[in-house]
Amino acid sequence: MKLLRFGPKGDEKPGLLDDQGVMRDLSGQVADIGGAVLSDDGLAAIGSLDPVELPVVPAGTRLGTPIAGTGKMICIGLNYADHAAESGSKVPDEPLIFMKATSAIQGPNDPIVLPRGAEKLDWEIELGIVIGTAAKYVSEADALKHVAGFVLANDVSERSYQKDRTGQWTKGKSCDSFGPLGPWLVTRDQVADPQNLSMKLSVNGEVMQDGSTATMVFGVAKLVSYLSQFMTLHPGDVISTGTPPGVAMGMPTPRFLRPGDVVELEIEGLGQQRAEVVADT
Amino acid sequence: MKLLRFGPKGDEKPGLLDDQGVMRDLSGQVADIGGAVLSDDGLAAIGSLDPVELPVVPAGTRLGTPIAGTGKMICIGLNYADHAAESGSKVPDEPLIFMKATSAIQGPNDPIVLPRGAEKLDWEIELGIVIGTAAKYVSEADALKHVAGFVLANDVSERSYQKDRTGQWTKGKSCDSFGPLGPWLVTRDQVADPQNLSMKLSVNGEVMQDGSTATMVFGVAKLVSYLSQFMTLHPGDVISTGTPPGVAMGMPTPRFLRPGDVVELEIEGLGQQRAEVVADT
Repeated sequence: MKLLRFGPKGDEKPGLLDDQGVMRDLSGQVADIGGAVLSDDGLAAIGSLDPVELPVVPAGTRLGTPIAGTGKMICIGLNYADHAAESGSKVPDEPLIFMKATSAIQGPNDPIVLPRGAEKLDWEIELGIVIGTAAKYVSEADALKHVAGFVLANDVSERSYQKDRTGQWTKGKSCDSFGPLGPWLVTRDQVADPQNLSMKLSVNGEVMQDGSTATMVFGVAKLVSYLSQFMTLHPGDVISTGTPPGVAMGMPTPRFLRPGDVVELEIEGLGQQRAEVVADT
Repeated sequence: MKLLRFGPKGDEKPGLLDDQGVMRDLSGQVADIGGAVLSDDGLAAIGSLDPVELPVVPAGTRLGTPIAGTGKMICIGLNYADHAAESGSKVPDEPLIFMKATSAIQGPNDPIVLPRGAEKLDWEIELGIVIGTAAKYVSEADALKHVAGFVLANDVSERSYQKDRTGQWTKGKSCDSFGPLGPWLVTRDQVADPQNLSMKLSVNGEVMQDGSTATMVFGVAKLVSYLSQFMTLHPGDVISTGTPPGVAMGMPTPRFLRPGDVVELEIEGLGQQRAEVVADT
């Protein structure tokens, strides 16, 4: 299934995308796409519905983040060997994690806002893992059972804030609008192999990132298991698994994002995002 | 006012502490201590109630975190010059920020859980700022208007996870139970000068930290203003402002926490915490 949330920002309703690509309204069936709805039983209940009987959501309706109530968004740094190299860093011995403020999360096509005074706005296409049931001290073998599905993510970053403004990356990762998620949460049964998905990101039509989750250093099951050794992962939590090469920061002469730029990204099977960069007002 | 939340974990109700030190039930008046209830108007509405007419909460009832719906917990690192020195670090030129997962937040007297395999469990008494109304690009002069009040915080840390387990501090700050908050949210009108509060933390009765918010490098107004340049601070968000000297890590021979240890802490006017350290089961 492809689950989604539609409507005005902060007032989204739950929905799904049917096999004909039509958005359907689930608000009569579930309160939202979060919590227990993300468990195997919750997803099965939605799966048992006949989408044709659900109200149609008009095409063009705004999409929000497809997950309600994300309590934490954990990001993995330097998780593609080639990206580590372009960043002038070596691949970590174990996953490098940082947090993105959940207040940065937004819909897949919402504008990316250049913070006042920011000069090094960058993109990072990433595979997002959506937790379905609480995970603590889970093994790699059991890890995927705790995953509801996957989501396309852009780990938008301001490199000056991240690297030049005193320790810790959070500052350059957490600005409002720096966490576009979606268009849909694709349930894990529909993703045959999360370690073999092509990924492509372009800026103004020019391809910047063209990779695959196949070259991820630490894979999905490892990351869920690893993180669960430190903290409980709760339903709706998102793990953004790192980006392949091709970010602005890695260019000989970085070409950072400016107002008016259009960022488009796609992961195989997970849909597309298209966001315009705007100045903060 | 001293606002609080009482009852079983995950099912807390809102309350307040009256002038006689009796807990009173606010669940008939407000849904919870969060969101719009934290605005000046929301707090004034509670302030207009006569506590004597509210139901008494039995003494000894468990306290939860006094804030519902904390969307992010931002911590400030090395914000006391003496603590920076004991950590072998210099005072940053501007605030150093990191995130603690909100899933780590718990009540003031809940056990602190030593994660499996952890060996360097440490304490950090901190003044927590609770945001009352959304703040974005606010000046230092206006910053305090966005503060609902203050809360006692223990920024529990695992130093090996924080420092030895690959970049970024989040890993050593976000384990379950690493964010005790409370006992109460003390509204800002009751804190005459947040930069002049004594702070004391003891382990098994031995005083380890004995400081004052007077020696904070970046003060409350500066921190709120600074952070709001990067991201919107929302009602219920907590900023933990750093710790004075006296953590285990700073000792010539660090004495990290072990199961059975009792950590007690107090900030002037903000109440006390008493937590036992337990092994993870």
